[in-house]
Amino acid sequence: MSSRVANAALRSKIMSADDAAALIQHGDNVGMSGFTGAGYPKAVPAALASRMSAAHQAGDEFKVGVWTGASTAPELDGALAEADGVELRLPYQSDPISRAKINAGTMEYIDVHLSHVAQMTWEGFLGKLNCAVVEVTAVNEDGTLLPSASVGNNKTWIDQADKVILEVNSWQRMELQGMHDIYYGTALPPHRKPLPIVDAADRIGDPFFRVDPDKVIAIVETDAPDRNTPFKPLDEDSKAIAAHLMDFLELEVRSGRMPEGLLPLQSGVGNIANAVLAGLSESPWKGLKAYTEVLQDGMLDLIENGTIEVASATAFSLSPEGVQRFNDDIDFFNKRIIMRPQEISNHPEAIRRLGVIASNGLIEADIYGNVNSTHIMGSRIQNGIGGSGDFARNAYLSTFVTPSTAKGGALSCIVPMVTHVDHTEHDVQVLITEQGLADLRGCSPRKRAQRIIDNCAHPDFKPMLQDYFDRAQRGAWGLQTPHLLGEAFSWHERFMQTGTMRQG
Amino acid sequence: MSSRVANAALRSKIMSADDAAALIQHGDNVGMSGFTGAGYPKAVPAALASRMSAAHQAGDEFKVGVWTGASTAPELDGALAEADGVELRLPYQSDPISRAKINAGTMEYIDVHLSHVAQMTWEGFLGKLNCAVVEVTAVNEDGTLLPSASVGNNKTWIDQADKVILEVNSWQRMELQGMHDIYYGTALPPHRKPLPIVDAADRIGDPFFRVDPDKVIAIVETDAPDRNTPFKPLDEDSKAIAAHLMDFLELEVRSGRMPEGLLPLQSGVGNIANAVLAGLSESPWKGLKAYTEVLQDGMLDLIENGTIEVASATAFSLSPEGVQRFNDDIDFFNKRIIMRPQEISNHPEAIRRLGVIASNGLIEADIYGNVNSTHIMGSRIQNGIGGSGDFARNAYLSTFVTPSTAKGGALSCIVPMVTHVDHTEHDVQVLITEQGLADLRGCSPRKRAQRIIDNCAHPDFKPMLQDYFDRAQRGAWGLQTPHLLGEAFSWHERFMQTGTMRQG
Repeated sequence: MSSRVANAALRSKIMSADDAAALIQHGDNVGMSGFTGAGYPKAVPAALASRMSAAHQAGDEFKVGVWTGASTAPELDGALAEADGVELRLPYQSDPISRAKINAGTMEYIDVHLSHVAQMTWEGFLGKLNCAVVEVTAVNEDGTLLPSASVGNNKTWIDQADKVILEVNSWQRMELQGMHDIYYGTALPPHRKPLPIVDAADRIGDPFFRVDPDKVIAIVETDAPDRNTPFKPLDEDSKAIAAHLMDFLELEVRSGRMPEGLLPLQSGVGNIANAVLAGLSESPWKGLKAYTEVLQDGMLDLIENGTIEVASATAFSLSPEGVQRFNDDIDFFNKRIIMRPQEISNHPEAIRRLGVIASNGLIEADIYGNVNSTHIMGSRIQNGIGGSGDFARNAYLSTFVTPSTAKGGALSCIVPMVTHVDHTEHDVQVLITEQGLADLRGCSPRKRAQRIIDNCAHPDFKPMLQDYFDRAQRGAWGLQTPHLLGEAFSWHERFMQTGTMRQG
Repeated sequence: MSSRVANAALRSKIMSADDAAALIQHGDNVGMSGFTGAGYPKAVPAALASRMSAAHQAGDEFKVGVWTGASTAPELDGALAEADGVELRLPYQSDPISRAKINAGTMEYIDVHLSHVAQMTWEGFLGKLNCAVVEVTAVNEDGTLLPSASVGNNKTWIDQADKVILEVNSWQRMELQGMHDIYYGTALPPHRKPLPIVDAADRIGDPFFRVDPDKVIAIVETDAPDRNTPFKPLDEDSKAIAAHLMDFLELEVRSGRMPEGLLPLQSGVGNIANAVLAGLSESPWKGLKAYTEVLQDGMLDLIENGTIEVASATAFSLSPEGVQRFNDDIDFFNKRIIMRPQEISNHPEAIRRLGVIASNGLIEADIYGNVNSTHIMGSRIQNGIGGSGDFARNAYLSTFVTPSTAKGGALSCIVPMVTHVDHTEHDVQVLITEQGLADLRGCSPRKRAQRIIDNCAHPDFKPMLQDYFDRAQRGAWGLQTPHLLGEAFSWHERFMQTGTMRQG
């Protein structure tokens, strides 16, 4: 393989992953690339994990803070968590080993709105960023960097870290060039200016990262694929949820509350999101735009068949087949996809201005429309809030989607009261399950409750929810949002004791 | 009194409040002016309430939807609620009669982010707006309208309502002219443009409202004062909270995390907010700016002594003495105060760009930093979220302030788990009570809990909180956010049963 490090000065810094990892110290905060399993460093984290394990065996402490864009992969989160090498993780994770350590209390985790991370770092609110470890596709002759399959917080890590370690991954395609839009116009107040985006298709930045060459302390060459989780066939529940959303959007257009050509779409990650995209594919709409966080396989279909004209995001999250399709037609996709830093893809200013139609998943919602996106039984973290708050709060239309039950029917995803709140009643406009859709706009809390029970709850849990709601209206301390605090979490307690929320 | 209706065509529409109220029908949605007791209509609501009472006595239905800027006064909220004439109230209220009806379940209420109301109305998400009832200071010869002591949602009501009733209040000073900045550049997506504010002092609009004269169906002349709640002397707890915040801001400047000249200030309404303003008055800072929602008495002091150079808001909330001082020096204040629509004073885009330092009150916070701003015992509404979410989510620095106890010490304002969430853990950076300040930035949930217990809890409740937290760390289902769901609300249940959260 011929080197992708075209800059002579930087070429002199090429070294092994082990040598590069040796430049990271115990106690460092390390900003790593990576977002939904794309564009994370493939070699240095594992080498760092080995150093940590060796240090621990020798009785020495060795832990670092790990900051990323969002989730990464076993080679990063898994390896470092396995080595007990993570003091504090932020702003998002979805790794099973990492999750287990966090919930066992041996690893700290801060769950942050993805749009807030860059500014908090720059403001100094998170402490010092010692080192960046960022995967790129190539180092240009002029020293600028061709980004990889995700942008995430890389611009911020490279700017803010004292030292920069680059991984140059030959597996990433050179044809990515031109897709990225790295905005260098952000600032700290009082120097901030309007973000000059008025259309999802607007390009406002550069196709490359800038880096101070003196800060680059190591370059590691790799040739390794992204995580690329296999695509799951769409299940019936997801298809039903997508159909309810499509019907609703058609009704909104007919009612004059939504423009004929819709508005830019955001969709969360996962099976339901892919089903929604598939639903759009069969819709009459053409020439739509997406202003979203992550591009899944379903988005490639929409771009190919003309449903989506341009998609803006910060990362890919493709299956191996999706990667193959993308690579086969990379010049076509290059013109129709824009990859931005996550502070821009998720920026409140852009989301509100563009009027995004947001659709996000959840763990549980309560009868009043509060949403828990993060915690199982109120205590155990699953993944994190990600960008859902950025989109839900600022969207033109904020929808949440979920199957009505989980764990083979043992859990109702609609509960009397959620055990953790990530999205308040103020930010949830439409709730959709396979059972149906509850339009909560303009509804007071008790009206919301009846709509959610009637339209969204699973038939097996509907009478229990209605019973709680009826009794709460008779026994609560006030009737704005009637609750019986003594039993608001009784369903969760029953699940923890018996393995099901169902009554015996 | 000579008429303030200078436009000849509109002068022909002058009539009595009773005649004007007769133009409002059962089932109408009515957009009324009014924000924190300033600029609400003084005559038509009472006349409408009389009609409603008469209709009810005759066995007829007569209820309307009442949409405002924020809170109003007994002549509006009190009168209409007393007459059982409000079907649905939004987006904020603080009236005792209104509150009682809502909590008795006889009046519906939707609690909305104040920055969202205008767009939701325009989008059609709240239903049809039939009529606007807006107080103005004068009708100009060209038919434009000189706004009153609050702007609130008036621009939206006048634009969106089918019919407009104006109250022209001679009590409001003509010298208000030039203070208002009514922005006519908002739009529905996909036609939205950047908000051209880069400094709290920027004027981007007109000093008058525009109105289609054909929509004006009535003009009522009034001469009546605003509510003007008396100023309460600052108590020791409020002064202590303000002192903690001042110390913290100084530390932030010394640490380089805050510019020397600070950033634009937002402060909530009430005693603690006034104490914070008084604290600033004794600080070395000069030439600051405020980008806030409401101007209280304390802000007048700061403008007079040069601490604040320019203050931007959407409404006044002054005491009778404050009004006197303002009127005595109205030309001085006119040049230093900007009154904007609440969709602009509270706009996420402006708040984030300017980097506002936000300080808001609360009802209770929990050990993990979740904040309840609205509900007593999870069910009973107090006032509403108001603009606190607009500011907390988008601020440069988001602080929340509260005494550590309430109800004479029977209630701890720091609890194991809040019974309603308005601001999630993701949006609360600093919590301050008279006991001290907890800086939660960069802290995982368990670290947050220990800081809040150590620094903010009242000594009488601190051991109980520590005991809950310790046991939760042993018995919870996961250690990211350890809770014991069976007793998370036990303090609230004890209060409802015994009148105190204290253990017997």
